[in-house]
Amino acid sequence: MAKTLIFGHKSPDTDTICSALVYADLKQQLGMDAEPVRLGEVNKETQFALDHFGVEAPQLIEKVDDDVTDVILVDHNEFQQSVDNIQDVRISEVIDHHRVSNFETKEPLYFRAEPVGCTATILNKMHKENGVVVSKENAGLLLSAIISDSLLLKSPTCTQVDVDAAYELAEIAGVDLETYGLDMLKAGADVSDKSALDFVTMDAKEFTMGDAKVQIAQVNTVDTNEIYQNQAAIEKEIEQIINDKNLDLFLFVATGILNNDSDVLALGSAKDNVEKGFNVSLDADNRAILKGVVSRKKQIVTNLTETFTN
Amino acid sequence: MAKTLIFGHKSPDTDTICSALVYADLKQQLGMDAEPVRLGEVNKETQFALDHFGVEAPQLIEKVDDDVTDVILVDHNEFQQSVDNIQDVRISEVIDHHRVSNFETKEPLYFRAEPVGCTATILNKMHKENGVVVSKENAGLLLSAIISDSLLLKSPTCTQVDVDAAYELAEIAGVDLETYGLDMLKAGADVSDKSALDFVTMDAKEFTMGDAKVQIAQVNTVDTNEIYQNQAAIEKEIEQIINDKNLDLFLFVATGILNNDSDVLALGSAKDNVEKGFNVSLDADNRAILKGVVSRKKQIVTNLTETFTN
Repeated sequence: MAKTLIFGHKSPDTDTICSALVYADLKQQLGMDAEPVRLGEVNKETQFALDHFGVEAPQLIEKVDDDVTDVILVDHNEFQQSVDNIQDVRISEVIDHHRVSNFETKEPLYFRAEPVGCTATILNKMHKENGVVVSKENAGLLLSAIISDSLLLKSPTCTQVDVDAAYELAEIAGVDLETYGLDMLKAGADVSDKSALDFVTMDAKEFTMGDAKVQIAQVNTVDTNEIYQNQAAIEKEIEQIINDKNLDLFLFVATGILNNDSDVLALGSAKDNVEKGFNVSLDADNRAILKGVVSRKKQIVTNLTETFTN
Repeated sequence: MAKTLIFGHKSPDTDTICSALVYADLKQQLGMDAEPVRLGEVNKETQFALDHFGVEAPQLIEKVDDDVTDVILVDHNEFQQSVDNIQDVRISEVIDHHRVSNFETKEPLYFRAEPVGCTATILNKMHKENGVVVSKENAGLLLSAIISDSLLLKSPTCTQVDVDAAYELAEIAGVDLETYGLDMLKAGADVSDKSALDFVTMDAKEFTMGDAKVQIAQVNTVDTNEIYQNQAAIEKEIEQIINDKNLDLFLFVATGILNNDSDVLALGSAKDNVEKGFNVSLDADNRAILKGVVSRKKQIVTNLTETFTN
């Protein structure tokens, strides 16, 4: 096992996997004994990107082994999204683009968060700062991460810096941004073989909002109705998670990648906060349409945190 | 009042004051409506630096006014060291070199912490990144901050990056590093007009360690015995603060700038942790010599946090 492990969050998405891979490669080029790892299964969208650019997925770990001296977190900082024994290891760096919360260290560290749409965008910048040229494969991975986090540059989290990086990286990677991007998103939005349990866990993150424990799962899809064909089964899985983790709210978000609306299902004792936070009424099935809402981070977490803390 | 306020921690030291001044100037040059402010009295060392380079101290504030949209924190991130209403304001940036703890935001932000000896060292780098030349006055302020935080490049917190920055800045500022540095430290170490209350408050920081509330005050001096001439008065002030703030430990650190040892006084129900953490015995006066200990951050906070959490 390498001395420094680099990993993103649990329920890994394309930014988390690709950023771990590319940052480990950059660190190796700069002389560090770094190894990328992952905390969960590779999703279809990410696998499409890895296959397209001929890159192996990083190794899966359950916990950080005792012989690892340092870890570097990419694409997250909140401990509940990180490896289970994160409190026992020394975090030497964080590269992230999320809010900072439930994170602390005993010692000074290198912590770099920027309010851009994607960790990959920061990594693209860091290559330049270190005078390292981004390889074709790495450009493809970073581009895939930006497309994923920005839903093809359409999310409100996407900044001009992300857009510029995406076009620059597409050229190095030798792909057409729009064509490759839509193919990748569609590969990820193929839910034909997914179970109800997959839906509610494949991209789920837990948050502390005020005193409340909230879990938010998001699934991108071409047609949100397809997701809810068996809503009862989804509800059953969610109720189980609410009980197991003692959650106050589980928000399941099905996002249409073509119309850019989200069809959400809210369960748990604090589900009223979804109505308050988004000024909608949940229907008899505990569902509501959030028009133009595609970003968990910028449009959902911010809004709900505000509601829970006021 | 400007739209964005920039400030360092309470009980401001030279790095906090100078970094606020210089970063506000950099931000203004980059087009931001930024204003440096401070959260407490300017100490003698800082005043020496300001006078030497002909710069006015920033304005004192008690709290952030309602018409301020954003704040930028320099040289700190822990909320208990920040302005009282920090939870009510939007933090758009943090530039710091301390551990991250008791800090959170609702939204993504620009957070830049680096494990170097001084915030000013990071600001020196940021001028280069933005293609902005450091003025003679600003070079003097940044240099003063580095000399202060590193006790003339002698503290274990001081990295090669700080050393290189210090020599570079001394040349721009037109001063001899050693001569100016010792003059500045001596000005700060002049305690002839200080009261016992001054000693325990002039550079005091509060920390959460495990479940414990700990306050650590540090005074640099040419002769630590001079500080303890009236130890009873110092103890009385500390007991008052322990009662008022319900502290578990107050550690008063008198650091000799010539011999680089610290003569500490520990009071509070958790004072045993000082003995454990540093493998020393407190004498009948609750004092102990910590050989070679000059850095609160790297040698004291790290050590005590470890002791309190294990």
